[in-house]
Amino acid sequence: MEVIEDRERLVKLAPIVAADIQYHVFVCTGTSCSAVGSAEVKNAFERELKARGLQYGKVAKGCNPEGSVVLTECGSVGFCAIGAAVMVYPDGVWYAQVRAGDVPEIVEEHIVNGRPVERLALLRLTRG
Amino acid sequence: MEVIEDRERLVKLAPIVAADIQYHVFVCTGTSCSAVGSAEVKNAFERELKARGLQYGKVAKGCNPEGSVVLTECGSVGFCAIGAAVMVYPDGVWYAQVRAGDVPEIVEEHIVNGRPVERLALLRLTRG
Repeated sequence: MEVIEDRERLVKLAPIVAADIQYHVFVCTGTSCSAVGSAEVKNAFERELKARGLQYGKVAKGCNPEGSVVLTECGSVGFCAIGAAVMVYPDGVWYAQVRAGDVPEIVEEHIVNGRPVERLALLRLTRG
Repeated sequence: MEVIEDRERLVKLAPIVAADIQYHVFVCTGTSCSAVGSAEVKNAFERELKARGLQYGKVAKGCNPEGSVVLTECGSVGFCAIGAAVMVYPDGVWYAQVRAGDVPEIVEEHIVNGRPVERLALLRLTRG
């Protein structure tokens, strides 16, 4: 398989390469987290991030090509009994028992103001 | 829904809360990355990490309860045309065009020695 080495071509194929991404938020959509509303949690992040012009992506999808936050679904991380799990990187903060109603606070406090929401933050990567 | 506040109970429900996690590796399993072998890439990470006792998890699954690396599948991150995409956090390094054959080098150089593999690293979070 061909490996593309030309950076200009890579940026054309994946414009996010040239973006100024500051946060990557993951919402677990594994079976247990889904059962306690992780789809609603992800929708709430989309709503909050898009309303503030923070979510990176195409205008046609309501996102901002200059946005600084990437939102991604992920598989199980071991918080199955205490979901929904949300991870905010590069900070390395794992939130547990997240409900859609908690999302505006996580976006405002953590993403916008840089202050993790302590009542929901349960694990921190030691190198984070 | 009940919110569990007792930390001891939370650790019992999710032992990873008390673990010393240093790296969280995500492998994209979106449609485009799957088409270029992301399942094999994830399997290769499992093989390499488990062989070194690095992958956090249950012994019954070949993992190590004292492991320091979490491996998780994730959805599309915008590298669809240049997959498979692999993200290593908290470093905030995004790898593109990853094949199973690249994985031993990523584990040895980046995870074990702390030196990202430059030829594959395409994006870095500005705060990473």
